[in-house]
Amino acid sequence: MNQEVSSTVNDTAVGVVQASDVQSNIEEHLTRTVMQSFDGCRDERLNVLMTALVRHLHAFIRDVRLTEDEWNAAIEFLTEVGHITDDRRQEFILLSDVLGASMQTINVNNVAHGNATEATVFGPFFTESSPHIDNGGDIAGGAAGQPCWVEGTVTDVDGRPIPHARIEVWEADEAGFYDVQYADDRVSARAHLYSDDDGRYRFWCLTPTPYPIPHDGPVGRMLAATGRSPMRASHLHFMVSAPGQRTLVTHIFVRGDELLGHDTVFGVKDSLVTDFIEQPAHTPTPDGRDLAEQSWSRARFDLVLAPDPAVVGPS
Amino acid sequence: MNQEVSSTVNDTAVGVVQASDVQSNIEEHLTRTVMQSFDGCRDERLNVLMTALVRHLHAFIRDVRLTEDEWNAAIEFLTEVGHITDDRRQEFILLSDVLGASMQTINVNNVAHGNATEATVFGPFFTESSPHIDNGGDIAGGAAGQPCWVEGTVTDVDGRPIPHARIEVWEADEAGFYDVQYADDRVSARAHLYSDDDGRYRFWCLTPTPYPIPHDGPVGRMLAATGRSPMRASHLHFMVSAPGQRTLVTHIFVRGDELLGHDTVFGVKDSLVTDFIEQPAHTPTPDGRDLAEQSWSRARFDLVLAPDPAVVGPS
Repeated sequence: MNQEVSSTVNDTAVGVVQASDVQSNIEEHLTRTVMQSFDGCRDERLNVLMTALVRHLHAFIRDVRLTEDEWNAAIEFLTEVGHITDDRRQEFILLSDVLGASMQTINVNNVAHGNATEATVFGPFFTESSPHIDNGGDIAGGAAGQPCWVEGTVTDVDGRPIPHARIEVWEADEAGFYDVQYADDRVSARAHLYSDDDGRYRFWCLTPTPYPIPHDGPVGRMLAATGRSPMRASHLHFMVSAPGQRTLVTHIFVRGDELLGHDTVFGVKDSLVTDFIEQPAHTPTPDGRDLAEQSWSRARFDLVLAPDPAVVGPS
Repeated sequence: MNQEVSSTVNDTAVGVVQASDVQSNIEEHLTRTVMQSFDGCRDERLNVLMTALVRHLHAFIRDVRLTEDEWNAAIEFLTEVGHITDDRRQEFILLSDVLGASMQTINVNNVAHGNATEATVFGPFFTESSPHIDNGGDIAGGAAGQPCWVEGTVTDVDGRPIPHARIEVWEADEAGFYDVQYADDRVSARAHLYSDDDGRYRFWCLTPTPYPIPHDGPVGRMLAATGRSPMRASHLHFMVSAPGQRTLVTHIFVRGDELLGHDTVFGVKDSLVTDFIEQPAHTPTPDGRDLAEQSWSRARFDLVLAPDPAVVGPS
């Protein structure tokens, strides 16, 4: 038998309802019981993860007084996210991205370290086995867009050049699509190169342009329902690795882009905003490339890698 | 540029790491930014839900210092849950069930109310349009198991009989399978009936037996990895509805079942544990049914419905 309870129930459930003590005890007892069900877990870390997940998940349900219709809607939403996900589309990553969960995970794992370049979201569009280009080569591979010259150095936090660092770069074309979003299997607007003996790098790519994340699925509908834009600020992806250094996953962003304050995956950090300087047609290029009547742009970004493992001493 | 930071980084990430103030500020700033991204949401309730979701999700990531490998594992896990889910199998509901999220949602929406029968999890095996049986009929529909006579009353919290309440009952067969888990489209071990003019009900079913939730998928692997059993305590599902009353979704459980304390979906409540009394073969049945050499069981459970909407006054 239940005990008699005094309680206020908010039918419209817009706000947060304070349950009575009896009701609170019932709810807290359940949360404890579920957490204790993991007592037999021999993997200590997995136990930490599962019990924390239960604690926060239950706190969410209790805080918002989740209705059964809302629970059903959540199940349906996750089912749709699962069903649209395939080898070429990862809607769960998009979901994590637009909730800032991806960026928060990046933050947690890339603890601010001296002058090391800040990390940002990885995104769903990286692919293994990108083409190799020499320093000074072009990653475009036929993708449409304004040519852009990017150069800089790779150093450690003490300013020492890091030669032969592997630099993966990838980006969308001027229509806002990555190659994996094309209907065919073309590989374009992605490549990897290595810093030279002096830790310098340079390559041609496309001037980054803004684009929406794929928003024809459940995540896009969620953004629309909540009044949010699906647009990402213009950016060029980097992943930089070298022995003894923490692998850096980051973007550089285009200074002046009006989307910098509204990036739908929360990837923008001030330190990553870079001048992309417009060059009128016929401006000589750094490598003597003939661009005929095309304008182009140029950017410089110095990449600073933190030591790996990132054990940070006192400042 | 980042600022210099003092921080302890725990490589094995088993415990919870306290981040420095600078790092905390970075993380808290992100959470605020994501929550504020919903400021334009015109649906007030949706805004409450999304901002609370972000707050708790980020708190989880920060508390456990989620690694990128763990984030990847979570994305892969959810993808598998999505891909195994179809019209007949709902792995997201199983996931919600084994995390106690379903039961907590039930708790929140079925605030303890006087002597009203307690609610428990709905489960993934209910189907619309079950067969109708008369009072005293048999729900088994050919499913294998020991016959069981269940009877009782449906009343309101003041003890007034509720005639013509709709009673949906469903259960697994003795092998632990619901009809929807069979390879064919048989409908069995489920039906609906109505309480009679005096608010009484009675029907034949199968003595409930313990069974595992479907555990050949990602949720089953999670249970195995965490040392948890996939077993549910023996139970018979009820959903009872009547005009002016809160719809009751519940089970009755079998007293003495050793799984009562370890139900993998946390559905057991003491008030729902019921005596199922074994009857040797040839014991006369309440309705004169001839069971030949079969033993049978009987149970009595009185269903008490809370008023709907469940606005509860002082005790």
